[in-house]
Amino acid sequence: MIVVMSPQASREQVESASELLRSRGLIPVSSTVAGVTVLITEGTDGPELATVLESAPGVDRVVTVSGSQRLTSRVFRPEDTEVALGSAGGAVFGGTGFAVIAGPCAVESPAQMNAVVDSVVASGAVMLRGGAFKPRTSPYSFQGLGLAGLTLLAEQRKRTGLPVVTEVVTPEDVKCVAEESDMLQIGARNMQNFELLREAGASGRPVLLKRGMSATIEEWLLAAEYVLHMGNSDVVLCERGIRSFERGTRFTLDLSAVAEAKRLTHLPVIVDPSHSTGKPHLVTPMSLAAASCGADGLIVDVHTDASNAMCDGAQALDSEQFSTLMGRLKPVVEAVGRTLSPALTHSLAQV
Amino acid sequence: MIVVMSPQASREQVESASELLRSRGLIPVSSTVAGVTVLITEGTDGPELATVLESAPGVDRVVTVSGSQRLTSRVFRPEDTEVALGSAGGAVFGGTGFAVIAGPCAVESPAQMNAVVDSVVASGAVMLRGGAFKPRTSPYSFQGLGLAGLTLLAEQRKRTGLPVVTEVVTPEDVKCVAEESDMLQIGARNMQNFELLREAGASGRPVLLKRGMSATIEEWLLAAEYVLHMGNSDVVLCERGIRSFERGTRFTLDLSAVAEAKRLTHLPVIVDPSHSTGKPHLVTPMSLAAASCGADGLIVDVHTDASNAMCDGAQALDSEQFSTLMGRLKPVVEAVGRTLSPALTHSLAQV
Amino acid sequence: MIVVMSPQASREQVESASELLRSRGLIPVSSTVAGVTVLITEGTDGPELATVLESAPGVDRVVTVSGSQRLTSRVFRPEDTEVALGSAGGAVFGGTGFAVIAGPCAVESPAQMNAVVDSVVASGAVMLRGGAFKPRTSPYSFQGLGLAGLTLLAEQRKRTGLPVVTEVVTPEDVKCVAEESDMLQIGARNMQNFELLREAGASGRPVLLKRGMSATIEEWLLAAEYVLHMGNSDVVLCERGIRSFERGTRFTLDLSAVAEAKRLTHLPVIVDPSHSTGKPHLVTPMSLAAASCGADGLIVDVHTDASNAMCDGAQALDSEQFSTLMGRLKPVVEAVGRTLSPALTHSLAQV
Amino acid sequence: MIVVMSPQASREQVESASELLRSRGLIPVSSTVAGVTVLITEGTDGPELATVLESAPGVDRVVTVSGSQRLTSRVFRPEDTEVALGSAGGAVFGGTGFAVIAGPCAVESPAQMNAVVDSVVASGAVMLRGGAFKPRTSPYSFQGLGLAGLTLLAEQRKRTGLPVVTEVVTPEDVKCVAEESDMLQIGARNMQNFELLREAGASGRPVLLKRGMSATIEEWLLAAEYVLHMGNSDVVLCERGIRSFERGTRFTLDLSAVAEAKRLTHLPVIVDPSHSTGKPHLVTPMSLAAASCGADGLIVDVHTDASNAMCDGAQALDSEQFSTLMGRLKPVVEAVGRTLSPALTHSLAQV
Repeated sequence: MIVVMSPQASREQVESASELLRSRGLIPVSSTVAGVTVLITEGTDGPELATVLESAPGVDRVVTVSGSQRLTSRVFRPEDTEVALGSAGGAVFGGTGFAVIAGPCAVESPAQMNAVVDSVVASGAVMLRGGAFKPRTSPYSFQGLGLAGLTLLAEQRKRTGLPVVTEVVTPEDVKCVAEESDMLQIGARNMQNFELLREAGASGRPVLLKRGMSATIEEWLLAAEYVLHMGNSDVVLCERGIRSFERGTRFTLDLSAVAEAKRLTHLPVIVDPSHSTGKPHLVTPMSLAAASCGADGLIVDVHTDASNAMCDGAQALDSEQFSTLMGRLKPVVEAVGRTLSPALTHSLAQV
Repeated sequence: MIVVMSPQASREQVESASELLRSRGLIPVSSTVAGVTVLITEGTDGPELATVLESAPGVDRVVTVSGSQRLTSRVFRPEDTEVALGSAGGAVFGGTGFAVIAGPCAVESPAQMNAVVDSVVASGAVMLRGGAFKPRTSPYSFQGLGLAGLTLLAEQRKRTGLPVVTEVVTPEDVKCVAEESDMLQIGARNMQNFELLREAGASGRPVLLKRGMSATIEEWLLAAEYVLHMGNSDVVLCERGIRSFERGTRFTLDLSAVAEAKRLTHLPVIVDPSHSTGKPHLVTPMSLAAASCGADGLIVDVHTDASNAMCDGAQALDSEQFSTLMGRLKPVVEAVGRTLSPALTHSLAQV
Repeated sequence: MIVVMSPQASREQVESASELLRSRGLIPVSSTVAGVTVLITEGTDGPELATVLESAPGVDRVVTVSGSQRLTSRVFRPEDTEVALGSAGGAVFGGTGFAVIAGPCAVESPAQMNAVVDSVVASGAVMLRGGAFKPRTSPYSFQGLGLAGLTLLAEQRKRTGLPVVTEVVTPEDVKCVAEESDMLQIGARNMQNFELLREAGASGRPVLLKRGMSATIEEWLLAAEYVLHMGNSDVVLCERGIRSFERGTRFTLDLSAVAEAKRLTHLPVIVDPSHSTGKPHLVTPMSLAAASCGADGLIVDVHTDASNAMCDGAQALDSEQFSTLMGRLKPVVEAVGRTLSPALTHSLAQV
Repeated sequence: MIVVMSPQASREQVESASELLRSRGLIPVSSTVAGVTVLITEGTDGPELATVLESAPGVDRVVTVSGSQRLTSRVFRPEDTEVALGSAGGAVFGGTGFAVIAGPCAVESPAQMNAVVDSVVASGAVMLRGGAFKPRTSPYSFQGLGLAGLTLLAEQRKRTGLPVVTEVVTPEDVKCVAEESDMLQIGARNMQNFELLREAGASGRPVLLKRGMSATIEEWLLAAEYVLHMGNSDVVLCERGIRSFERGTRFTLDLSAVAEAKRLTHLPVIVDPSHSTGKPHLVTPMSLAAASCGADGLIVDVHTDASNAMCDGAQALDSEQFSTLMGRLKPVVEAVGRTLSPALTHSLAQV
């Protein structure tokens, strides 16, 4: 149940509504959505409580959401949320456009970043990706360049004017990653790292929330709820494959979950065709499929020297493959009534 | 390893090549592909054996396939196989067209069949489906009309001139189902019912082979191999969702498997968006996604009175939803450079 | 809902009770359990119907089972079912004993059978296994010796006096397999081969029903229901591992399902530690675990020359390993208050 | 590859060995194991490198581990690691004993803690559990008492003299949780929260590492490797169920993984039968099975007022059920040649 207070509600009125909820055994969590205070409870009590609350002073309306999502639900907010990044002309997720993020899995060097970024911008990417902090299964694998990687990424952001997204892996790093990038990526392994979600929510920065590799759609939306109830509604969900018995692909890309999530939530949903399939030859067909089933964008691994990539090179597209993907994507995006977000057309300076 | 004999090879030459294989510990299985005898072995021995065989009398060429698929592999046959059904103007799977099969989950009555068939034909289906023998989890659920259902389906085939596909669940029924329909469906639960696969192979009828709900891509292709090595190359594969932990959809539709199967095999692959998702609102987005990622067609549940359907009504589209799907499908199919197979335009008589 | 007729109920009374069910929209399936007619329906209607039925002439009692199992449910039959095989001194599943079936995966030759059988009998196996018809993923793999294998197995049955179980893969073979063996095994791939289940049910022979590799517990019990409603209550369930993402073991042995199945059904449940784990070093720990959690027995692959086995040799125990297993099993079986079924002590003639 | 330096190796010798590894393209990570410096690399290069290294000054021996585990591998350390907690008479995991941890899922109040702790100590638990920081799927669910909960748990530790384990969910909290408890639990959702693992490793406190719900055995051991390579070898692994398609149990308890992990690693492995099954009636059979297949202990949810539990009450045993479990556990533990770790026999003061 969500009790939406009116913009003019006094502190006393908020407290009085909270007290009413507590008297029914419900424990309200207070949040601020679009400048307005809302009180959120896990359970719903009966319909009679909603009626009582709606006539309480300072209460604007009461929303009863079935299931366990709350602020992420279309019942609370029917219209699509648009998450805009960067300054004017930047990337927008969740509107009529279809936006493609591209870049290397890991930031490695200035030369690598220049090469990859030039290439993906030329082909129409509207946002850049690149990992500085890499969560790796083995402690002996390359763990990313850390702060140095963050700086290299920020240089590309400045050079191209494009927004950048990068992963943050621990609450302590949120502040510095938020300063150097436009969007915080929460990786699949951290989807239920709740302290990290809360900290990302508090940062005010847009969040790219990857689905955990064994998370249900409901758990994914509840992870987003952790960000939203901190007052941050700029969340983009990202499907990146789930674990199944199938060994022919790295993970099983669950596009039904994209369509289902779009039905349940107002938040934008994008797809990662690279990490999910783990095979370059599957990236293009899965990208087209994502565009057709309602996704709002893609995040694609691109490397201009994949065989020497320090992380996950085997799945990255090269420049030419990415260019081909973008060319094939456009008619499909338009066939479902959307527009491929346009590439920047200004010239790029070398750092 | 596949030893392809020349069309003029004598019986003695075939036996001599077989003997050569046996002398290396390989046990050849003989099959006839496009009128030519081939000898197939599980293992491959060394490259030297291939050289010896290729110069043996009556041997045309030797194909060494890595992995365990043989006749289904693109290594054996690089070009796409087209499976054509019905007379001229019927459905073709695997060419440049994209063909849609539609109809009710189960055949129930003449009135139901007339209504559903009229509706799907009007919207552009080029082939009909309808189950007469229904494999059901519980022995107390409706098991299909059996032979009576087969007759009702055959009446629609005659009335419309469209090819029909229906499921066969046991080897004994193959002959009679082959007589009354154009294509034998092997359901997901029977994907590894090897006697049924052999019998369907021997029937010479085209086969629609659904992927088992926990079958790997490799196991699916090996099930097709059971049909092909009986001398029957007319197999259409059908992805219909796999089992995973996700409970928000009935099964997890694995579209990566469609793209991967298309890469590995020359056989056509279609998608069942109805049984996989179990939710009508997911059928259209998943159909569009299937068309984009390389599938050759769809098989869709349609019911004009879904709330009274005797089997799986909850997931069926109604006439209007199916018509909308077909309308949205056309531009997507064309955006990937294919053609939506045209609906018949002749008038339909009532049975 | 199950309507149990009294032993003296007339044909008219049965028909009258059936008619009453049909008038409420329930479609009764008639079966004979322990010589008594029962009418089984999928749904239950309201409690009032049960009251009406219980006072109808010829009706003994009405059992309302929640969930979808019926004759397999402990609600219908609270006490454990014991399935006894062979003549006096044979194997019994489901009582206070714990019985071990052992033998090779596939029957290969008289010498192999003599060696393996002598070895497992010496270590305490009370029943023999051996596959004559082998369902194999690839059509080019060894498919079993077929009828010749059946004969070899029957010779061991005669030689040892022990009951034997062997797999049947198609309805047509049920009659001949039932003649040559004491128990019909339905393999995991055929768990939902409903025609095969019905035919096995009609044969009157005890059935060993393996759980499908992606079957839920409920689907497994409903597959057993197909056998029971044909009037055959001698079903032993067998857990043999399910498919999961884990690749360190061949399948994931689901022992919770054993304990849960024992709670839900009166049928005996045994465990296959060989096919599930695929690793000999896991067979003993998983056998002990099975004995501790309530299983009624084991079915174990043993081969005296595993490296030359024609099928699944890699997972088989050798004689010594099997002997060690039996030695370690005894105290664990006794620690949970049961008795390891005793080995035969007569001398064995060579065939 | 692990290069074990001799205890007398100089800083220069360590650096020289590192340099040798780097010259072959291997990036060594330095760690301290039992007071000795080891250099660990992800890859292994050829056997020739090992020979060169073994004759380098200051190098004691070189261990080449196949697969990706290193310090956790039995190849590096063949004998079982014993993890001892608390002062003399506390709990030991990994020796010949079998130790049971018990307590409530969440710490709720002094009265609740007194009641549950008295009950589990009376029945033979040798260590206490209780969550103060609860990671919850929904932000609106009870999140644990936090620091107040930690204090309540510490009071029980003091009152009983028993060691306690509690979950830590974020790196920042490691220090304070390490002060108030004997062992840090890393939950399933945080198994790949690598910063948390590193921080726990650095704390020097023993770590209870739960397996992620979709983690392979290899990933689980590599997560432990993150703790070990920080110089902390006191890690106890805990299997708590994995995600599969089966919906009849909360998770699928993977006991094969316990036996397989015991073979691969020298670290102790225990089992959580409560969270894995989610059903009290499955806790006892799965506990007995765990004891039989090689587990070194259990961690069990117990609540004296489960129907009012604030978290996961539905799966907790009550006092009587726990007492019954302990009684049934003893003979099974002894049947596999181990000893149930004895309960304390001193009287307990009330806090």
